[in-house]
Amino acid sequence: MEIVAFERGHFSSYSACGIPYWVGGDVPERDRLIARSPEEHRARDIDLRMRTEVVEIDVEGARVRARDVDSGVESWTSYDKLVIATGARPIRPSLSGVDAPGVHGVQTLDDGQALLDSLSATEGRRAVVVGAGYIGVEMAEALINRGYEVTVVNRGKEPMSTLDPDMGRLVHKAMEGLGIIMVNDSEVTGFRTGDDGRVGAVVTADAEYPADVVVLGIGVRPETELAKAAGLPLGDRGGLLTDLSMRVRGHENIWAGGDCVEVLDLVSGRERHIPLGTHANKHGQIIGANVGGGYATFPGVVGTAVSKVCDLEIARTGLREKDARRVGLQFETVTIESTSRAGYYPGSAPMTVKMLAERRTGRLLGVQIVGREGAGKRVDIAAVALTAGMTVEQMTSLDLGYAPPFSPVWDPILVAARKAVAAIRSSV
Amino acid sequence: MEIVAFERGHFSSYSACGIPYWVGGDVPERDRLIARSPEEHRARDIDLRMRTEVVEIDVEGARVRARDVDSGVESWTSYDKLVIATGARPIRPSLSGVDAPGVHGVQTLDDGQALLDSLSATEGRRAVVVGAGYIGVEMAEALINRGYEVTVVNRGKEPMSTLDPDMGRLVHKAMEGLGIIMVNDSEVTGFRTGDDGRVGAVVTADAEYPADVVVLGIGVRPETELAKAAGLPLGDRGGLLTDLSMRVRGHENIWAGGDCVEVLDLVSGRERHIPLGTHANKHGQIIGANVGGGYATFPGVVGTAVSKVCDLEIARTGLREKDARRVGLQFETVTIESTSRAGYYPGSAPMTVKMLAERRTGRLLGVQIVGREGAGKRVDIAAVALTAGMTVEQMTSLDLGYAPPFSPVWDPILVAARKAVAAIRSSV
Repeated sequence: MEIVAFERGHFSSYSACGIPYWVGGDVPERDRLIARSPEEHRARDIDLRMRTEVVEIDVEGARVRARDVDSGVESWTSYDKLVIATGARPIRPSLSGVDAPGVHGVQTLDDGQALLDSLSATEGRRAVVVGAGYIGVEMAEALINRGYEVTVVNRGKEPMSTLDPDMGRLVHKAMEGLGIIMVNDSEVTGFRTGDDGRVGAVVTADAEYPADVVVLGIGVRPETELAKAAGLPLGDRGGLLTDLSMRVRGHENIWAGGDCVEVLDLVSGRERHIPLGTHANKHGQIIGANVGGGYATFPGVVGTAVSKVCDLEIARTGLREKDARRVGLQFETVTIESTSRAGYYPGSAPMTVKMLAERRTGRLLGVQIVGREGAGKRVDIAAVALTAGMTVEQMTSLDLGYAPPFSPVWDPILVAARKAVAAIRSSV
Repeated sequence: MEIVAFERGHFSSYSACGIPYWVGGDVPERDRLIARSPEEHRARDIDLRMRTEVVEIDVEGARVRARDVDSGVESWTSYDKLVIATGARPIRPSLSGVDAPGVHGVQTLDDGQALLDSLSATEGRRAVVVGAGYIGVEMAEALINRGYEVTVVNRGKEPMSTLDPDMGRLVHKAMEGLGIIMVNDSEVTGFRTGDDGRVGAVVTADAEYPADVVVLGIGVRPETELAKAAGLPLGDRGGLLTDLSMRVRGHENIWAGGDCVEVLDLVSGRERHIPLGTHANKHGQIIGANVGGGYATFPGVVGTAVSKVCDLEIARTGLREKDARRVGLQFETVTIESTSRAGYYPGSAPMTVKMLAERRTGRLLGVQIVGREGAGKRVDIAAVALTAGMTVEQMTSLDLGYAPPFSPVWDPILVAARKAVAAIRSSV
């Protein structure tokens, strides 16, 4: 196969998920985040054209128009098979001052470098993070680790809106414990700039938060302008729609994957936009197999995600309460407190597990975990159980690993499952 | 219900699994291992008779004969329903010197206390552990932590015979790295005692290993002498046989659970003896529900276990190669090296995952993991997948938690599953 790849940026394959840890200093240098350089791709016979942006897809003519970013020169390239992997674009609100120096997104390596340069360029130690999702809390950690006074301004009632608010509240309290100032229920209305034109404060309806640097972490949208212009099918969330083989629906020779597509949520049966590297990597592998004449499918996701703020681990899989309600499910919720290890074993740390199970059937619908070491990856137990369609009753007899340094004799997931069984029984 | 409970020892509900950590000093005092004291049981209206050994079960007469251990006085107690939870008995080889002072088992709290007293009573710092299963390696860790020179004498080719030898070899190397002397392929033939009558060395066919203290960790057998004498059904491994409700087969009013029963291995379809607290606790809960007129079942196990030696984590679930062969399964095995976190994230540690999958069907048969922090509990992913009967192909699309501090973007379990898929395909 003759493979031509276009990339408008300066970097080819890198871990965007690692950017907060590079900014925070855990990862010492940018190049550690690069999985494969353009040269390495080319050594594999991929004609990789860097700093070259595809500006049009001509589906009828089976060709793309690409522009050299620096020279502006354009040319058409024909294809037999096309793979769209345009990723996601950070949401940048159209507010006054949003483009001022000192206001940063953190989507690309270029963004990360710009933020680090900005941090070096200012004496001030006050940072405001706008948004309290994964990127927001990870950037709050990064900036705390660099010695900044950090304020997080969040539109929602609690941080981490991928959790139910009762679990988000645990994150809120832990962040405050780390010295982060959490401002919830607060919409940013603009950014005040100083005489030097640089950002000086984040403005909300109620208050002004002085800022020497601002990080925007208010989410991303699928980067599908090109696909939309080409008439390719988009879902409610703006992502490309594919079939199980990652082929764009209705288009025999076009595939799409990564942050620019919507994925099937196996628990709710709905399409969702979940921009995560773990899905994108699977998509790449599957598209590669299919384009190459093999066979592989991406059956969907259950919505697993894990993150941390300093030593607080945050994980979720499946549906939140509002997700379940939205698709007409009735359910019971239980929340339990347990520990990461046997209570008597040193380092045993508290862990809160919330579990949702469908009324009557008892089918597991979702799990959220907030705790310390050992809390995050425990969500995988629930992720596999969700994939298998297990009931909480079935989960109570799961044969999970036990030894005092690893778990209480009843793993926290089992404790939650037992309580969920009781809740389902009493609800009838 | 009127509940009478007999216990021949000094302690009622305690964590035997915690004994190595108490001996090693991680758990500061014995009473931390006690879950519920006799007084607490009695406060719940349980007529708990300590230091009282049941010496006969009269099934026909529905009564048990119990003996007060101290006074020798015996009496009969009638029952409507009987629960047998006699546990397991450590294997004590009938070798010369095995009863000498300084030779210790570690099954009960009393054993643990005797070992600690013995360690205090000797100046010597040479310890020999006989056996290299869970108890053997945990006791080796405990004694290293207390500053002993530790030699482990092991009958098998490699330590941890619950793993395949190729994975056991990784444990072997790691133990040597900790300064533990590993002697494999070596059968103990006796114990040499000194002039004071105390143990002085462990003797094998080839050598003698000087020892100031000896710990036996060569496994346990179901404690079913009583049950056998009463004519209750025992399996090939000497454990009581129950139905799914934990009722002893053929006996309407007798239940049994914990280390004295055999459990159904869901992967091989055979009965096994797996003396683990996690199963025993589930049995207790299920028996309680059923005896109380409720309904609960124990469907079986997949053979999950996790342990550690210092910072080396060891985990397994499902079948080893020889288990699979024994039940007539043909399979492929793959072994992969991965890391606990994204490679660029600090603290990322190597992890080896071995996976067995059935030929043709691709059904997951077993997983073994040896690594550092984060390796052990990853086995739970495979344990749930085994329970659900997943194929390795299905596993490749599992939606597992990913963020750089928690996992590479392809979790090690997914990397192994992908390699297993390739192996199955090429084997046809």
